[in-house]
Amino acid sequence: MTAATAQSTAQHDIDSPESLARRRHGQSVLSRIDGHAGEAVIDSLADISPALGHHVAAFAFGDIYDRPGLDPRSRQLVTLGALTALGGCEPQLKVHIGAALNVGISREEITEALLHAAVYCGFPRALNATTAAREVFADRDRDDDSNSNDSDSDSNGTR
Amino acid sequence: MTAATAQSTAQHDIDSPESLARRRHGQSVLSRIDGHAGEAVIDSLADISPALGHHVAAFAFGDIYDRPGLDPRSRQLVTLGALTALGGCEPQLKVHIGAALNVGISREEITEALLHAAVYCGFPRALNATTAAREVFADRDRDDDSNSNDSDSDSNGTR
Amino acid sequence: MTAATAQSTAQHDIDSPESLARRRHGQSVLSRIDGHAGEAVIDSLADISPALGHHVAAFAFGDIYDRPGLDPRSRQLVTLGALTALGGCEPQLKVHIGAALNVGISREEITEALLHAAVYCGFPRALNATTAAREVFADRDRDDDSNSNDSDSDSNGTR
Amino acid sequence: MTAATAQSTAQHDIDSPESLARRRHGQSVLSRIDGHAGEAVIDSLADISPALGHHVAAFAFGDIYDRPGLDPRSRQLVTLGALTALGGCEPQLKVHIGAALNVGISREEITEALLHAAVYCGFPRALNATTAAREVFADRDRDDDSNSNDSDSDSNGTR
Amino acid sequence: MTAATAQSTAQHDIDSPESLARRRHGQSVLSRIDGHAGEAVIDSLADISPALGHHVAAFAFGDIYDRPGLDPRSRQLVTLGALTALGGCEPQLKVHIGAALNVGISREEITEALLHAAVYCGFPRALNATTAAREVFADRDRDDDSNSNDSDSDSNGTR
Amino acid sequence: MTAATAQSTAQHDIDSPESLARRRHGQSVLSRIDGHAGEAVIDSLADISPALGHHVAAFAFGDIYDRPGLDPRSRQLVTLGALTALGGCEPQLKVHIGAALNVGISREEITEALLHAAVYCGFPRALNATTAAREVFADRDRDDDSNSNDSDSDSNGTR
Repeated sequence: MTAATAQSTAQHDIDSPESLARRRHGQSVLSRIDGHAGEAVIDSLADISPALGHHVAAFAFGDIYDRPGLDPRSRQLVTLGALTALGGCEPQLKVHIGAALNVGISREEITEALLHAAVYCGFPRALNATTAAREVFADRDRDDDSNSNDSDSDSNGTR
Repeated sequence: MTAATAQSTAQHDIDSPESLARRRHGQSVLSRIDGHAGEAVIDSLADISPALGHHVAAFAFGDIYDRPGLDPRSRQLVTLGALTALGGCEPQLKVHIGAALNVGISREEITEALLHAAVYCGFPRALNATTAAREVFADRDRDDDSNSNDSDSDSNGTR
Repeated sequence: MTAATAQSTAQHDIDSPESLARRRHGQSVLSRIDGHAGEAVIDSLADISPALGHHVAAFAFGDIYDRPGLDPRSRQLVTLGALTALGGCEPQLKVHIGAALNVGISREEITEALLHAAVYCGFPRALNATTAAREVFADRDRDDDSNSNDSDSDSNGTR
Repeated sequence: MTAATAQSTAQHDIDSPESLARRRHGQSVLSRIDGHAGEAVIDSLADISPALGHHVAAFAFGDIYDRPGLDPRSRQLVTLGALTALGGCEPQLKVHIGAALNVGISREEITEALLHAAVYCGFPRALNATTAAREVFADRDRDDDSNSNDSDSDSNGTR
Repeated sequence: MTAATAQSTAQHDIDSPESLARRRHGQSVLSRIDGHAGEAVIDSLADISPALGHHVAAFAFGDIYDRPGLDPRSRQLVTLGALTALGGCEPQLKVHIGAALNVGISREEITEALLHAAVYCGFPRALNATTAAREVFADRDRDDDSNSNDSDSDSNGTR
Repeated sequence: MTAATAQSTAQHDIDSPESLARRRHGQSVLSRIDGHAGEAVIDSLADISPALGHHVAAFAFGDIYDRPGLDPRSRQLVTLGALTALGGCEPQLKVHIGAALNVGISREEITEALLHAAVYCGFPRALNATTAAREVFADRDRDDDSNSNDSDSDSNGTR
């Protein structure tokens, strides 16, 4: 029996060796981009919907985010536009504003992107997204204060 | 090198043997439920975004739809609610109204589900979804007329 | 003067005998399905918008939910799909996740339905809905702990 | 048995004398406001979902629109804001732009309302709504041309 | 060099004399309608996105709201419809429910408008908007209690 | 009287010299990015809502798009994310897919961005956006065929 055949017979099984490998790979992509914030989302799903956590990691990050056709900066800009326009996704927006900082998008570019989105989805959604950005930036400032030898860490990939 | 390792190194490659197996499995689930309508969607993406077609098949149908935790009838009811509420997804709604018929949901139950949705997402979206249902039902009637020895085919799995 | 004539002359009057009968009937449907959670919603509207409370009971539950064309389990699946896709309706989603449990949909089916919805409305909305489900399940567990002789009450129709 | 009791036992029956009276009353409200456009919507539902048609008439117009707490002009302004923001409801928007003209809102006020909505729901939705308005205005002009002795009929209540 | 030429060369500069004049004018419109609530929104943006604050004032209020083609009462009704239908904009809805009171729309008309919106965008969004209205009304009552010689101030323009 | 004072007294007048200068500036930004497609949108509004056309040019492009804080490529990525997530904005999406090509985003990056968006707003909206992209790409191919000495014109700024 080939590996491919074995896989398809249990494709929906999130605990198969193949699924586990896919999830681990997705988690490594997620950690690289979102740092602890992304991992915390997956972990928080373990009790209630492990399959949802699996597919956030394996599909969203392992299958899609990691594709070479678009750089991480561009992906985060698309994500900021989409989440701002959707509305009501402030927790996810905060994770992805953090990820935007991590892949090198500056605070000024983030707030500019949210202002730009106002043209397309209206001011209320842009205002809510900007409030989310303020909270993320304030969290980063707090972290920086407690790590005083680490003053310009917003855009490095280790957080 | 184990199968799991091999897979993760090229997880994003939609033409790897593992991806091909996953896509084929998803396409078989899709064919079982949506018949030709679903296949046509995947095929139509081949020129413009083969990766989108791949993930509709491999992820949406292979990974998610095929999971044993919820029967196809229940999945289609959730889908009808979601697509009606989203709005602007009439092409997808038509595919899934067809799929609902295929998994044994009657025409009366479908229009009742759309009326039920009106409470939650308003009458305009329910009206648009009901217009989509009328078109699907008319298409089925036309097909039945041209296959006069096949009079109760709405809910069989072969279309 | 016939009953029908009398009714139409004051149809918009929510305090007419006909409206009162319709509201009471709706409230009995609501109580059967949502238990105290639904009643609490109606009661909370008494001071601010009694007409909104009236129509939630009389129309949404008395006119629509009670129709024989679709069973309560199916209605709740449509509702879960619609509310997840709408987003920003977490209070209503929590009431209807409770109602889903009440009509016999298991916790596993509910989280599976929300994962299924992710395909159609994206992961952020599915994550928010799953967070709402966790809160409902935790409330039920707390209630069960304080009623230790009532251990498997999630899916019975009395709450 | 009292009328109220009789009604509640068959409240969901759209063909009961009480439901018929409610529907007729709603249709008369609808005709007063939307003229033929509204009636056409109800009629078009007769084959596919008569219950949806019933509730558009009986509930939306008989129960809600006819309530004395808000004048028709104000109701149509709320409706224009809601339908523009929802998006994807162009058929309904066209009916309600026609209704807005019928209750005395001028063409200039309608396009101004849609520009105003752009601030809250973004320019794309406002542009789509304005395109719908252009189509309604052009239809009225055509009707006026074929009724040359009826030149300023946009805002009277007979259409 | 003419004024028009000078302006266009720095149109995006929110601190130019022209931009400052436009912002001040918008703020005066905003104060007239929203009172302190609106000013607080602009002020709260000073640290995070002064350009967003500028355009809320200069564009949304100075350019659009102040246009003569639609009276403030009508504008607020459109806004209530749009914000209710969008969902997830409760902070903005509260500001605009306050503004609605300020331009002379009564509490009863506001809750009626939100009930009316339920027909078009569903009950959950109408319920969330009505909850927002209750909070605004309670805030006004509290303010009235602490200003006992100011009993009918809901609809004056000074708040 | 200073220019700034003069402006604010008639800020809402779209035909004042200041407004005209702002509109012209916006139109030049729009032409640079969207070419004829954007101009056509403004022109098409001249009969029905010149003020909407004015503000698309003067505000959306003159005030916002032209700001130096975010490069055109990044703005278009945000726009693609927002319009895909909104749904029902296919005409605007087509204009902005064309604009994305014009500012140097490749066809492959555009379809990748739409696949990426599927994670956040679901597959149906991504499928609709991809259908819009196919139409834009086909239009470009047709234009290229009729200008055979202009083979790589997708990403230049003159269209």
